[in-house]
Amino acid sequence: MNPIRSIILAGGIGTRLWPLSRQYYPKQFLALDTLSLFQRTYERARRLSGDDGITVVTNAIHRYLVINQLEEIGCAIGEDRLLLEPAGRNTLPAIAWAMEGLRSSPGGAMAAIFPSDHLLEDSVVEEIRAAAPLARDRLITFGIRPTRPHTGYGYIRPGEPLGPGYRVREFREKPDGATALRLIGEGCLWNSGIFLFSAGLFFSELGKHQPALATAFAGGDPDYAALPALSVDYGLLEKSDRVAVVPLQAAWDDLGDFGALYEHEPRDAAGNAGAAEFLDARGNFVHARGKHVGVIGADDLVIVDTPDALLVCDRGQTSRVRELVERYDRKHDPITQFHLQVHRPWGSYTILEEAPSYKIKRVTVRPGKRLSLQLHRRRSEHWIVVSGTAEIQLGEDRFVLSPNESTFVKAGVRHRLGNPGAVPLEVIEVQSGDYLGEDDIVRFDDEYGRE
Amino acid sequence: MNPIRSIILAGGIGTRLWPLSRQYYPKQFLALDTLSLFQRTYERARRLSGDDGITVVTNAIHRYLVINQLEEIGCAIGEDRLLLEPAGRNTLPAIAWAMEGLRSSPGGAMAAIFPSDHLLEDSVVEEIRAAAPLARDRLITFGIRPTRPHTGYGYIRPGEPLGPGYRVREFREKPDGATALRLIGEGCLWNSGIFLFSAGLFFSELGKHQPALATAFAGGDPDYAALPALSVDYGLLEKSDRVAVVPLQAAWDDLGDFGALYEHEPRDAAGNAGAAEFLDARGNFVHARGKHVGVIGADDLVIVDTPDALLVCDRGQTSRVRELVERYDRKHDPITQFHLQVHRPWGSYTILEEAPSYKIKRVTVRPGKRLSLQLHRRRSEHWIVVSGTAEIQLGEDRFVLSPNESTFVKAGVRHRLGNPGAVPLEVIEVQSGDYLGEDDIVRFDDEYGRE
Repeated sequence: MNPIRSIILAGGIGTRLWPLSRQYYPKQFLALDTLSLFQRTYERARRLSGDDGITVVTNAIHRYLVINQLEEIGCAIGEDRLLLEPAGRNTLPAIAWAMEGLRSSPGGAMAAIFPSDHLLEDSVVEEIRAAAPLARDRLITFGIRPTRPHTGYGYIRPGEPLGPGYRVREFREKPDGATALRLIGEGCLWNSGIFLFSAGLFFSELGKHQPALATAFAGGDPDYAALPALSVDYGLLEKSDRVAVVPLQAAWDDLGDFGALYEHEPRDAAGNAGAAEFLDARGNFVHARGKHVGVIGADDLVIVDTPDALLVCDRGQTSRVRELVERYDRKHDPITQFHLQVHRPWGSYTILEEAPSYKIKRVTVRPGKRLSLQLHRRRSEHWIVVSGTAEIQLGEDRFVLSPNESTFVKAGVRHRLGNPGAVPLEVIEVQSGDYLGEDDIVRFDDEYGRE
Repeated sequence: MNPIRSIILAGGIGTRLWPLSRQYYPKQFLALDTLSLFQRTYERARRLSGDDGITVVTNAIHRYLVINQLEEIGCAIGEDRLLLEPAGRNTLPAIAWAMEGLRSSPGGAMAAIFPSDHLLEDSVVEEIRAAAPLARDRLITFGIRPTRPHTGYGYIRPGEPLGPGYRVREFREKPDGATALRLIGEGCLWNSGIFLFSAGLFFSELGKHQPALATAFAGGDPDYAALPALSVDYGLLEKSDRVAVVPLQAAWDDLGDFGALYEHEPRDAAGNAGAAEFLDARGNFVHARGKHVGVIGADDLVIVDTPDALLVCDRGQTSRVRELVERYDRKHDPITQFHLQVHRPWGSYTILEEAPSYKIKRVTVRPGKRLSLQLHRRRSEHWIVVSGTAEIQLGEDRFVLSPNESTFVKAGVRHRLGNPGAVPLEVIEVQSGDYLGEDDIVRFDDEYGRE
């Protein structure tokens, strides 16, 4: 039997964890402890499929986040296994694209589909393997036994038993609280967003229900952004009569909002989670790295602080963070798009201070990486190496700087910063000039294909 | 008739406005708009007494805050008019010390006493002048007509009329809510903390009730820290039978906590004050400069954010901020003492980033000021001028740097930074070394008497 391939869906630009999550650094890439949810998902998929058997679908803007986060866990991903969506079209086009690689595989080729921003116990790998025989003639969706009448999930009503699972009698999307309670009483399961599809069955069912999509990727890359935005549930599973649901034993949570994050945090006797001084305060969730927080006489709040944005939200209304993000978006406020730390193919930079006539950045260059050969017309840059080794090209000169050494890049001079070492390079950059926008850059040579 | 002198009490280290207020930068020095409460108090006292007629009593640690804030409003204060308490001993010793300068003045010399951390309408100056005749044979305390049953204030029961005021029948300190309501119904006034004392009467009454204190300053400076901590109310006014209360018409608020600050802020239709996105949120007070704040489903909160500390407090419990500060103090946590911006005689510095091997500061030097001639044994410093002109002494060299120029101060080299110009000098300083504590400094020459 063929090994089971894995498809990781990493295209989300989650809004409900703002201000931790931003469009250019969404939830799946956040390091909630040492690893991000995406990294954990990849490690899990590796157990099922091995490195070569994993395909990642992500938004094009997250390309280097994927590459760099995989590098952090010692993995390199080939271009053919990293599919870059020019725009998000929901899950079905993403899955169809990734499944295309299995179409010509020998009979029985199948793939497990993993969201990359959920909490999931690794034992799921064994459960997926056990479901493989059923996946030969059923599209399998994995179900979770509900623990509360959640109104934000999809519910699945199982029918007659079928191998390790059941036929599906009904899908119910986001019921109200009373209905959710009734569905749970009637034995319905939550839809986990984890699937197991054999390529043959997937494409034949897709051909029946979404014929245009079934052939969209057959002749090379289509105009992805022009494809219909369809979820795999609505676009395929709810229409097909060849679907089975297999209940999972593995612990699962979609960590859909701060309310869900709170449930997984250690808490004190008063129900407070996070580092703060609490005075007559109960049931609060505080996340504020490196900052003193005092909470007095307030209950059941989510308090999330980042260097440029602060959220204070009733813990029962955390799903409404999305509305707040929409408000900022309507105003074209970039606070929902970027952190002060901005990720680049070669590493990242963090704005430490901005003033009209100068800007201070901490620039981190990953081992072996270098920035483009570039020049700025209107700003000069002072570079001070504080950690690691810098290889510098400045006009016609090339030299190396060690910690506590510095150089000056005058406006108009071609320059390039690289890290020839084996540890990260950290440089403090003080820019000055009459214009300090990121668009004052002329690139001559770039390893990452940026003009 | 002699002009009325002014005594400004600026010795408080207010804790109830933490994290805005810190021990080394307390409430009276905070710039709530363009001027601090201290600066506004000084401007007001000037109208009454002229520059030469004002004495400021402050804690010794706030000496340069007073000098620099007065310089900002175009005033220089002589050493003889700036009394520096080595430790706070409450109001009576401070007033006795400042009144000492009037003891030998011709008969009828008198002084108005102003707290420096209250909101007060300037029209008070005329009311004080009008009360001067009565002050010849009464110690005058000014009263405020209560607007709510505040339990944190002192109440004064007026007796029979006397000139523009009344005899005092009773002082009542911090009554409970029901008692406060009754006292208001009975015509009691709040004790404003503003007084008008003639020197002769003050010292004769002080001699009767606190004889040791009455002569403590007569023979030069006493051991101030060994004096009893006494409030003027408890130590003198409540004991004397020569006290009158004069009701003030001028608007007054002690701005004692964030609840009081909220009352003076402009508010939207939902009662929210401050810049934030409010979603189903009412009655909140948000103070978070330069930061995006979102509030969802939360009512009546005080949310005060600073770069290193955040307070979230029920608006009805803002007087309890003091308890929070006490908690930090018990742990010897410096978060109640310093801001990231630290004030120095020559200006200030702000820590922009701290890491184990480097520290970044923005250093601001006031026009005409310079730091001490100094060296550091274990850290080097990179200086980049971003605004103004720097005069630099480095070993045996002296030179001038303009914006966008930089220099390097090696560990062990004597150096001095000065601002010879007429506008503030701003320097970005990147320190690196194996030890970055502020105590790694050897001073050779200092204009501010620091060793």
